[in-house]
Amino acid sequence: MSRLEGKVLVAQGGGPTHVINQSVVGVALEARKFSQVTAVYGAVHGVRGIVEEDFVDLTRETTHNLEQVADTPSSGLLSTRDKPDEDYCARMFKVMQVHDIRYFFYVGGNDSSDTVRIVNEQAKAAKYELRAIHIPKTIDNDLMENDHCPGFGSAARYVAQAFMGVNLDNRALKGVYVGVVMGRHAGFLTAASAMARKYVDDGPHLVYVPERAFDTDKFLADVDRVYSQFGLCTIAVSEGISDAKGTPMITKLMGVEERDDHGNVQLSGTGALGDLLTQSIKKGLNLKRVRSDTFGYLQRSFIGCRSDRDAQEAREVGEKAVQFAMWDDVDGSVVIRRPVLNYSVDYELVPITLVAGKTRHMPDHFIHEDGNGVTDDFRNYCRPLLGSNFPQSHRLRAPIVSKILHK
Amino acid sequence: MSRLEGKVLVAQGGGPTHVINQSVVGVALEARKFSQVTAVYGAVHGVRGIVEEDFVDLTRETTHNLEQVADTPSSGLLSTRDKPDEDYCARMFKVMQVHDIRYFFYVGGNDSSDTVRIVNEQAKAAKYELRAIHIPKTIDNDLMENDHCPGFGSAARYVAQAFMGVNLDNRALKGVYVGVVMGRHAGFLTAASAMARKYVDDGPHLVYVPERAFDTDKFLADVDRVYSQFGLCTIAVSEGISDAKGTPMITKLMGVEERDDHGNVQLSGTGALGDLLTQSIKKGLNLKRVRSDTFGYLQRSFIGCRSDRDAQEAREVGEKAVQFAMWDDVDGSVVIRRPVLNYSVDYELVPITLVAGKTRHMPDHFIHEDGNGVTDDFRNYCRPLLGSNFPQSHRLRAPIVSKILHK
Repeated sequence: MSRLEGKVLVAQGGGPTHVINQSVVGVALEARKFSQVTAVYGAVHGVRGIVEEDFVDLTRETTHNLEQVADTPSSGLLSTRDKPDEDYCARMFKVMQVHDIRYFFYVGGNDSSDTVRIVNEQAKAAKYELRAIHIPKTIDNDLMENDHCPGFGSAARYVAQAFMGVNLDNRALKGVYVGVVMGRHAGFLTAASAMARKYVDDGPHLVYVPERAFDTDKFLADVDRVYSQFGLCTIAVSEGISDAKGTPMITKLMGVEERDDHGNVQLSGTGALGDLLTQSIKKGLNLKRVRSDTFGYLQRSFIGCRSDRDAQEAREVGEKAVQFAMWDDVDGSVVIRRPVLNYSVDYELVPITLVAGKTRHMPDHFIHEDGNGVTDDFRNYCRPLLGSNFPQSHRLRAPIVSKILHK
Repeated sequence: MSRLEGKVLVAQGGGPTHVINQSVVGVALEARKFSQVTAVYGAVHGVRGIVEEDFVDLTRETTHNLEQVADTPSSGLLSTRDKPDEDYCARMFKVMQVHDIRYFFYVGGNDSSDTVRIVNEQAKAAKYELRAIHIPKTIDNDLMENDHCPGFGSAARYVAQAFMGVNLDNRALKGVYVGVVMGRHAGFLTAASAMARKYVDDGPHLVYVPERAFDTDKFLADVDRVYSQFGLCTIAVSEGISDAKGTPMITKLMGVEERDDHGNVQLSGTGALGDLLTQSIKKGLNLKRVRSDTFGYLQRSFIGCRSDRDAQEAREVGEKAVQFAMWDDVDGSVVIRRPVLNYSVDYELVPITLVAGKTRHMPDHFIHEDGNGVTDDFRNYCRPLLGSNFPQSHRLRAPIVSKILHK
C-alpha cells in the first residue's frame, strides 16, 4: 500500500476514442476511495495542460456528470499531440511539485506511453516521489503486451457496421467500392471490416492491411477476379498500406506528403488515397462505377456506435491503474490479457518500457495467406470485442418467378 | 374499391436508404389483405428487373423474414439508375401484361417518380388497366409536396450523430474540419448537421447548402472569423454547393467532371471537394491542421443508426399506397403532410405530375440570412424526424484549479 500523500493527476493524450472518458472517470472515482489522495486533478489538453498548469478539479465534479461524460466519446479533458522531451518534462515536474502531485495517470497510445516513460525516468532522476502509470487507449489496437486496447472495440464496431451498410449499398447499385480505414502501421481496424460479412458473397471481398506489402498489380488482379465472379467488389484498405520498400502508397501515388509534429505522414483527413486507388481501378480494369469513402474521423468518435464491452473495459483499466498505484505502490503500464478466447480478461501491470513507443502488428495467423483478407482466427478474436446487440443484415428469400417472355 | 383482379408489382429505384425496405414490406403485407390480388411480385433491380422479367414472389415469403428485411438498410430488391424512355416502357408493359400485373408500386425519388409518370401515361395510351403509384423515398428530402421524405430522418440522424462526434474530436485536437454531406440540389441533409449542436460553441459552426451561391472569399472570411473566436472551426458543406452561376464547386475547383447515366456530375464516392476546400483554407488562411471527411455512402445505409419515426413512416407510405390503389382506385404519388409541427403526419395521394422529376429546395426561412447556417425554424422542423433516443454529448463542469506557478 502506498502511503504517499498527495494529489492525483489524470490526463488524456493522442487521438480521441469513443471510450477514453471511461478511463478518466475510472481513475477519478476509484482514487476518491483512498484517504492519502488529497485531490484528483485533470490536466486540460494532456501534457500541455501540465506545463501550462491548466487543471480542473475532478474532486468537485458530481458522480452523475462524470458518468454522463464517461458515456460521451472523445477526450473530455481534451488532448494534445505534444511529445515531451527532457526540457518539457522538467517543466512538467516543476508544476507537479508545486501542486503536490504524486500520482500521474496518462491515458493514451504509443506516443503517450513513451511520455509516461520519460516522465517516470525524470522523476526518478530528480528523486521526486511519483507513481506514473500509463493507461492504454488506441483505436489502432497496436499497443504491445495487450490482447486488445480500449477504444478498438467501439471503432471496430463502427467499421464493421459501416461495411455492412456499404456492402448492402453496393449490392443494390453494383460497382467497385473502396473504404479507407484508419491504421498507420497495424491493420486491426481495417481487418474489423471483415466482421461485416454474413452471407458468403458479402463484402468486404478484399482486405488490405499495412502488415503486407501492397502491390498495385496484384491488387488490380484481385479486384478483377472478384468483379468477374460477383459483378461487384467491396474493398477495405488501411490508410497505411505501403509498398515492399515501406513507402506509403499515398506518398507513392501522390508524390507529395504532409507530416505532423511526430514526423508522421498525414494519412487521415484527406480522401486522396481512396481517390487514387479508384482511379487506378478505373484505368487498369476499365470499370466505370468505382467509388471510395475515407472513413476518417467518423470512425473515431461517432456517437451512438459503441461496444458496451469496450466501454466496460476502458472503465476497468482506469480503476485498475489506481489500484496498482495505491495498493501495490508500483509504476508501469496497465495491459489487458485474455485468458479465455470467448471471453474473459485479466488486467496486469507491466514495465512501461515493454509498451512505450513500440507498435504491435497483426500476427501472421490473423492474415489470409493471399494477403488480401483475414482468417477465422481473427474473426474469433474480434467478435467478442464488438460488444452485444451487434446488428445483422437480412435478405429476401422469396422464390424466383418463372419467366414467360424471356424463358 | 378497385375490382381489378391481377398481380401487384413492387420495385425500388435510385439510391438506397436506411428504411426503403419498410415501404416494400408495407406494400407486400397490406396487398395480401385484398382478395383481388392474385400475387405480390418484387422486381429485382428496379425497372430493369421489369424489362428483364426478373421477379421474386413475395407471396411466398414469411412474415418474419419480411420484417427482418424491413429492418435492414438499403434496397432488399436491389436498385437501378436506368431511366425508362418510351421504348423501355413499352417493353415493361409487355412483361406486365404477360404476368397480369395490374398494380405497380415504385419506391423512389425524383427520377423514379418520373418513371412512374411515364409508365402511367403509357398504360393509359395503351388502354392497359394499371394502377401506378409512386412511394416517396430519398435521403435528399427533396420531393415536392412532401413535408419530408422517408429515408431523410435516418440519414439526418447519421449526419447529426457524425457531427456530434466530429465536434468533440475537433475540440480535443483543435483545427479546422470540413465534413462533406450528400445533397446535390437540396441542403436538407447538410442542414441536419446543425442538430449536433448542444453547447453554444459546439460545431458545426458553419453550414453551406446548395440553395445559396458559394463564394470562396466569403467562405474563407467566415472560417477566419470562427477560428479567431474559438481556435477551431467545424464546417458542414453540401456536396452540391455551386457558385453564383450555378457551376458546382467541385467542377470549378477540379476543372474536370464525371457524369452518371442521368447526366448528373459525380459528387459522391470521391473526397475531391473536401480536399479542395481544405487546400483553399490552408493556403488562404495559412492554417496547418485542416482536415476533411466526405461522408459518402456511409450516411446512406449505415446499419444501426436509424430514426424509428422514419422507419414507421416508410412502412406507412407503403401501406397507404396499397390502400389508395385498392380502396380509392386511383393513381398518383403518396405524400407526407405535417398538420402539427411537433408532431403528427397525414398521408395523401397527389397527381404524379406534381412530384415527378421536380426538386424541392430548402425554404428561405430554414436558411440563416448570412447563408452559412440554419434557423430555429429548421431545427424545429428537423428535430422530430431524428426519432427517439437521440444521443447527447456531455462536458465536464469541474472547476478550474488556480494556477500557482503561472499566476
